[in-house]
Amino acid sequence: MARKANVVEFPSLGALDRTAGQLGRQLAQALRTAIRRGDTKPGELLPSTRTLAKSLMIARGTVIEAFEQLISEGFLESQGRAGTRVALSLVDVSPTSKQEDGRPIETRSWIPTTRIERFAQVAQQFGAAPPVPFSVSVPIGKAAPDDIWRRLGNRIRARGPGAPSGYGDPQGALELREAVADYVRKSRSVRCEASQVIITSGTQQGLYLACQVLLDVGDFAWVEDPAYRGITAILESAGHTNQMIRVPVDAEGLNVDSGIDQCPQARAAFVTSSHQYPLGMPMSMARRNALLAWARASNAWIVEDDYDGELRYAGHPFPSLQGLDPDRVIYLGTFSKILFPSLRLGYAIVPPYLAQAFCGARVLMDRHPANADQHVLAAFISEGYLDRHIRRIRGVYADIHRQIIEAVGRLLPRKFAWLEPSDQGMHLVLWLADGIDDQWVASKASEDGVSVRAVSPMYASGNGRPGLILGLGGFSAEEIESATRRLAHIVMLAAKNSSG
Amino acid sequence: MARKANVVEFPSLGALDRTAGQLGRQLAQALRTAIRRGDTKPGELLPSTRTLAKSLMIARGTVIEAFEQLISEGFLESQGRAGTRVALSLVDVSPTSKQEDGRPIETRSWIPTTRIERFAQVAQQFGAAPPVPFSVSVPIGKAAPDDIWRRLGNRIRARGPGAPSGYGDPQGALELREAVADYVRKSRSVRCEASQVIITSGTQQGLYLACQVLLDVGDFAWVEDPAYRGITAILESAGHTNQMIRVPVDAEGLNVDSGIDQCPQARAAFVTSSHQYPLGMPMSMARRNALLAWARASNAWIVEDDYDGELRYAGHPFPSLQGLDPDRVIYLGTFSKILFPSLRLGYAIVPPYLAQAFCGARVLMDRHPANADQHVLAAFISEGYLDRHIRRIRGVYADIHRQIIEAVGRLLPRKFAWLEPSDQGMHLVLWLADGIDDQWVASKASEDGVSVRAVSPMYASGNGRPGLILGLGGFSAEEIESATRRLAHIVMLAAKNSSG
Repeated sequence: MARKANVVEFPSLGALDRTAGQLGRQLAQALRTAIRRGDTKPGELLPSTRTLAKSLMIARGTVIEAFEQLISEGFLESQGRAGTRVALSLVDVSPTSKQEDGRPIETRSWIPTTRIERFAQVAQQFGAAPPVPFSVSVPIGKAAPDDIWRRLGNRIRARGPGAPSGYGDPQGALELREAVADYVRKSRSVRCEASQVIITSGTQQGLYLACQVLLDVGDFAWVEDPAYRGITAILESAGHTNQMIRVPVDAEGLNVDSGIDQCPQARAAFVTSSHQYPLGMPMSMARRNALLAWARASNAWIVEDDYDGELRYAGHPFPSLQGLDPDRVIYLGTFSKILFPSLRLGYAIVPPYLAQAFCGARVLMDRHPANADQHVLAAFISEGYLDRHIRRIRGVYADIHRQIIEAVGRLLPRKFAWLEPSDQGMHLVLWLADGIDDQWVASKASEDGVSVRAVSPMYASGNGRPGLILGLGGFSAEEIESATRRLAHIVMLAAKNSSG
Repeated sequence: MARKANVVEFPSLGALDRTAGQLGRQLAQALRTAIRRGDTKPGELLPSTRTLAKSLMIARGTVIEAFEQLISEGFLESQGRAGTRVALSLVDVSPTSKQEDGRPIETRSWIPTTRIERFAQVAQQFGAAPPVPFSVSVPIGKAAPDDIWRRLGNRIRARGPGAPSGYGDPQGALELREAVADYVRKSRSVRCEASQVIITSGTQQGLYLACQVLLDVGDFAWVEDPAYRGITAILESAGHTNQMIRVPVDAEGLNVDSGIDQCPQARAAFVTSSHQYPLGMPMSMARRNALLAWARASNAWIVEDDYDGELRYAGHPFPSLQGLDPDRVIYLGTFSKILFPSLRLGYAIVPPYLAQAFCGARVLMDRHPANADQHVLAAFISEGYLDRHIRRIRGVYADIHRQIIEAVGRLLPRKFAWLEPSDQGMHLVLWLADGIDDQWVASKASEDGVSVRAVSPMYASGNGRPGLILGLGGFSAEEIESATRRLAHIVMLAAKNSSG
């Protein structure tokens, strides 16, 4: 049996096995375990490397190596001459301390095996949306694709490229990439060739790929404040390897000056420039230019998440950031909103020099997109059905948009709740009076068959304003009226609670 | 304008902006840039932290902090008292120095912005397979699903749960999870409920999710040697955060003792226990028990990649590792092989306490699986068509398996090339005589319309034996005969080259 070293100064370190080699790694692992187990608490000073080395009878360099590893992992913090302590940041590992329904999250402890716990929390935040108002993008009623989608699908699957086949192109089927390139050139002033199009399963995969490809360990990224939870959760999930700088959004969109003040050296900025998520305004032309100027000067990338840019009910859109500087911008789009979410097809348009890297990152995640629907969609676009569908659906959603605005205005007193003006997109923001707990409202509404999302958790912690996201789906006027009544009742109840 | 600190000892560090704060992070970034640019080379010693602090006129603690960060990122290496140097490992960042076709990979430099380059290399290694022998799992001819698949699809899409719908369950449609749970219980002795099934887009996504959920920063993982490139590439792509221990495979499968000798504290072991990829043998019962004993004793997980376990042409299968210990094993399966790859549907069976975490990791990658095909597949399984299809396809592939063995035995002299005996699975290994360059053969074969994969790059560097993977697809006897002739010609040419 191996000889065991007896640890005096830090008994819970356990036993090192000298015959197994890699003592530095063994020590690092033992320290991790001790910290996770709670043998030592955040803020507590560790023995000096000299003392520990002596008591463990190993080389001091070995201890230093282990400490350096754990500092880099965020378990320990160097205090310079004062020594090394268990990281204070371990006290509050989870970004939000409440679930969507407002209950505090149960954590077994404050430990960083929360990798598993954090992923489990993400799952709670992104459950399937029920097909009730105000879930976003529910393709029922008039919002459903008409029967041509299904019939075209039957035809394309019957033979040729839509039939069962082998492993396909990780970048996506060429026919679909060509159709997408044509479509975004015409409709969104995006400049690209089919070779720059990566077919994704939606903007979420586009965001994930962009983080994978663009951000090296330790790189900073600007993220809007407030922002879509889908991007903040990715950056949090990467552990301590990427660093998120939250940049406030005002009436003109991302405050570029604030980003530059906070972190000029960021490697990428993630923006929802057509229709800020959640607030709803487009980024002004001045801000677009400022953002591009910063990106050029600091050799950074812009990830332009254009998740619902097709839906404008009035006015004229600004040109896409991508069209203004195709070499600096990764443009993300999706068919989830304009067609239907369960299709799981979207696209990333990337500068030519990044196309292969995006493909490689995609390959490792899930090889390539499923084949048949890609060819159905390619035919749907190239045979002109998508244009026709968008013209029709714009009218449908403009009506639903108006119905929600009218019902909310009529049923909710303005002193408790008011809608952010908006003339585009697939959702509206209903602001709530200060003091109303939007997460409580969302949770109660869910029990009552009304689906809304709380806005305050979308802000960096401490900045949250209470509000609700009302998504647009193919619901009838009666369903909208009834859901708004139930929601109004809950909001008034919450207002009474907050003042009482 | 901000006051700039002039760096004397290390001119390429550039200028730190004292007014911007976060000097440690600025310095780390400047060092990264200098290293990437090649201002300083692998192995070169850096100035001491004391000297650098003095010349930059900043606190020594700030320099130490920056060094520690870069050590953890793998840019620098601590030499103990001898100081800190640029990491030697940066010389050879890419795991293989040749492309599949044998040409050396062009790298612009040795720099770690190779994040982008490495992903681009992965894309080259996983291009779409052409529908020619010996691409694996090409569902044509007798191997194609019969017309019931298409007709069932038309029916399921026409109405009900297969019709266009909103955002779905990240875990996958319940009907499909129930059907999969039944199927693996009966056919693979896997013990699970539908709540433990995560629908994936194939085993690649299962492997990716397992790495995300199970491996914390700094954790070690056992990987077979040789192994499927899909798992080694994931672990390499995570940068320096996970550490891969290659464990040799012998006639009984993974050499568990070697894994324990090398790294007893590994957090997970990735194994292809039914049909080792690429070698083809199953893991013996003794090894299964040894692996499970290690996993229990060291609180580790086993990821059981059962990518083609349905296809046995003789004999009786061993029970799955999952069935032997469902709490320790993540079981991965796919419909890519038994149905067709372009479907992109597979599954992970996970212990109940990990199900939510797998869902959360999945959500961040791409929200959820596409809806329609999940319901088509659920009906295909529950209405009994999958069992019928598997019975039929086993006979089809047994014939193709025999035809390849016969043609290779007849057309290739045994002194140059011989097949590894095998009675299961979707591929065969054709070993080549020592000295034959398998990557050259694969490249030449590709030019000649024959698709094979070189085996030697699947080994940890330095261990590679030359060989070729011949995949099974629905090719006719004539296509197999013709492709084998062309392949034999190229192998003989390569043998002449190697001896000449």
